[in-house]
Amino acid sequence: MTYTAEIIAVGTELLLGGTVNSDAQDVSKLLSEFGINVYFHTVVGDNPERMKQAVEIAKGRADIIITTGGLGPTFDDVTKQTLAEAFGKKLVFNEEVAKKIRSFFEKRLPNTKMPENNLRQAELPEGCEIFENVVGTAPGCAFEADGKHVIMLPGPPRECREMLKTCVDPYLRKLSEAQIHSHNIHIFGLGESAVEEKLRLLMENLTNPTLAPYAKDGEVMLRLTAKAQSKEQAEKLMAPILEEVQETLGDLIYGIDTESLENTVIMQLKEKGLTLAIAESCTGGLLSKRLTDIPGASEVYIGGVIAYSEQSKTELLGIERDLIREHKEVSREVAIAMAKGVRKRLGAAIGIGITGIAGPESDSSKREPGTVFIALATKDKAICREPKLYFDRERIRIGATNNALDMIRRELL
Amino acid sequence: MTYTAEIIAVGTELLLGGTVNSDAQDVSKLLSEFGINVYFHTVVGDNPERMKQAVEIAKGRADIIITTGGLGPTFDDVTKQTLAEAFGKKLVFNEEVAKKIRSFFEKRLPNTKMPENNLRQAELPEGCEIFENVVGTAPGCAFEADGKHVIMLPGPPRECREMLKTCVDPYLRKLSEAQIHSHNIHIFGLGESAVEEKLRLLMENLTNPTLAPYAKDGEVMLRLTAKAQSKEQAEKLMAPILEEVQETLGDLIYGIDTESLENTVIMQLKEKGLTLAIAESCTGGLLSKRLTDIPGASEVYIGGVIAYSEQSKTELLGIERDLIREHKEVSREVAIAMAKGVRKRLGAAIGIGITGIAGPESDSSKREPGTVFIALATKDKAICREPKLYFDRERIRIGATNNALDMIRRELL
Repeated sequence: MTYTAEIIAVGTELLLGGTVNSDAQDVSKLLSEFGINVYFHTVVGDNPERMKQAVEIAKGRADIIITTGGLGPTFDDVTKQTLAEAFGKKLVFNEEVAKKIRSFFEKRLPNTKMPENNLRQAELPEGCEIFENVVGTAPGCAFEADGKHVIMLPGPPRECREMLKTCVDPYLRKLSEAQIHSHNIHIFGLGESAVEEKLRLLMENLTNPTLAPYAKDGEVMLRLTAKAQSKEQAEKLMAPILEEVQETLGDLIYGIDTESLENTVIMQLKEKGLTLAIAESCTGGLLSKRLTDIPGASEVYIGGVIAYSEQSKTELLGIERDLIREHKEVSREVAIAMAKGVRKRLGAAIGIGITGIAGPESDSSKREPGTVFIALATKDKAICREPKLYFDRERIRIGATNNALDMIRRELL
Repeated sequence: MTYTAEIIAVGTELLLGGTVNSDAQDVSKLLSEFGINVYFHTVVGDNPERMKQAVEIAKGRADIIITTGGLGPTFDDVTKQTLAEAFGKKLVFNEEVAKKIRSFFEKRLPNTKMPENNLRQAELPEGCEIFENVVGTAPGCAFEADGKHVIMLPGPPRECREMLKTCVDPYLRKLSEAQIHSHNIHIFGLGESAVEEKLRLLMENLTNPTLAPYAKDGEVMLRLTAKAQSKEQAEKLMAPILEEVQETLGDLIYGIDTESLENTVIMQLKEKGLTLAIAESCTGGLLSKRLTDIPGASEVYIGGVIAYSEQSKTELLGIERDLIREHKEVSREVAIAMAKGVRKRLGAAIGIGITGIAGPESDSSKREPGTVFIALATKDKAICREPKLYFDRERIRIGATNNALDMIRRELL
């Protein structure tokens, strides 16, 4: 059978806008891998009555109810009570769980007395399967009742994510039959509606597999998804479509099933055994940060300079003061000098230089925010890209680093 | 009257886990500022039937229904059709909106032919108030019917956020009477349950104002919220509680109603007219990135070095190779040398040096990921903090930069 699931996130802070519902995203990802249909997410506050109402609606339209949040130690955490009641179960104090909570505290905070309210987390619905929380203190759990599966997970995103991997994944594996497999096709250099226009006929006529575009941070991703009895069958369904998409989009595709542009670049550098050095002005460390988000980046990324002031450009990169005076800090010439300078200083194969105006104010030459110069230097040459990124500060910075990564990627093709 | 609102986010990509529902967070924030109660968020796919079901449920329990998403140009964008139908309205083609869409395209992409499907975005419910989209092409709208207010907003977060500010805010201002005001108290250096333990008696006995803790990225925030007829009355209700919290937590509080630690630090530096330079190893640019997220950071942040390799430490910071050999790259001594080196090179008042193991692998000396040394140097002294951050790579990096910012903040108190 094909299961239908509903996710209920519990927490007044979500309804007040204090936090974003990333748990629902993480749970959804896992469910879609198992071919379990998710038709609704609901968010409800720390309020027993409205929570009960949300649970009743979910019971009427889903086979699996997954809650996140409201398992914590504080007095307004009432998920377990509400769900146990809705399914006619009692809460039972579990001594073993209590022990784990005490020892977790002693290990992490040896000099702090554990707040007693933490032990409320050891009360669990009778007969449930307990999901151990290796990141925090609140355990999760699952039980079957009234023909439904109920799964309760902690709210803090890292705890929820870890429990999804170690406990919920094996739990769902027992239930599932049909499988969903997908490929993510990552594109840089074309907008969402232009991508769709190119592939529209193809997309409209597909039922299995399906092909759908998602836009995010100046990139477009196409998700190709097939439902089948096995991975092999799913791949067979997807292969001709994947080929057609690749033919249509060519090298606008920077990766299939890769995580990000930065991942692609780090992988390419490792494959070719080349190193990278970076000098950033308007992006202020964002490019460096994105590259070093990737574990193992240190093998190919030597280091860089945040040249936020004229002094840092001359002192750390050896750029002539006259060059900056003549062409201004935001110029093609200075971007190239930055790329060359940092490459030489650190002895890297590739050097990147970024200078621009991130806004919200214009610079002293009254040029618009979004004016950005991105240079790439190797032993033999230097090139410069000048994208017009007339957006807000955040998008200008993301767009500039995307372009820099795309230049490195194309250099290494 | 006190209104109740429900947010319905539309998009299969949300249910598949492709994106996170940040729109619901942004809408919730605005609604809570107006004292409008939000009791539920719902997410539903690009499916007319289930969307109708979600709308019917919302109609039964909310006075204001706000949708996000599904206004785009692609064939599966069906929000307007579904809502118009549910409230007995027709969709009408609006020539003026069509003009704006065409000119938006010409301005942004002068050399590209506009995909014709973009004009579907000019079809709007009869008699609605049109919300102009200055960031993208899909306009939003609002109408009143069956005693309910219906507001439709675009899905892309930046478009939604801008429209909330420029269109929804004035729309709601006309409806609202009672006001909600709040203060956010930001804390660094104490966990959530420890904060709650300290303030528990106070929190439990409050009804108006209320005081609630939120944990995020190693920080804790307390939100103090009062409901009253005017801002003055609300402030009067909150003042004694705010004072009690400040007395209890002292300088663990790094700011009230500030946005972040980095904001606090940039503000302090500006006030004192001091400059900052940074040398980062394991955090790889994250501290620099966080500081330069703040517009105007360039006034006080001179620049820095990403010293990811030994070569970058010696070449860019002038650290003696022998010092590194003797104490190893991840050591108190090297952190201090980095802070001193970058301070001197760039002529800054304060220098920061961070070295550590971000993981997931241990370093050559087999020390655990999470071993981090953070140094701060001024003209007269150098201090070093060694927090034990035994988490995953992301949290180690965030934790290290949080500690660095906290050290600067305390230095400038």
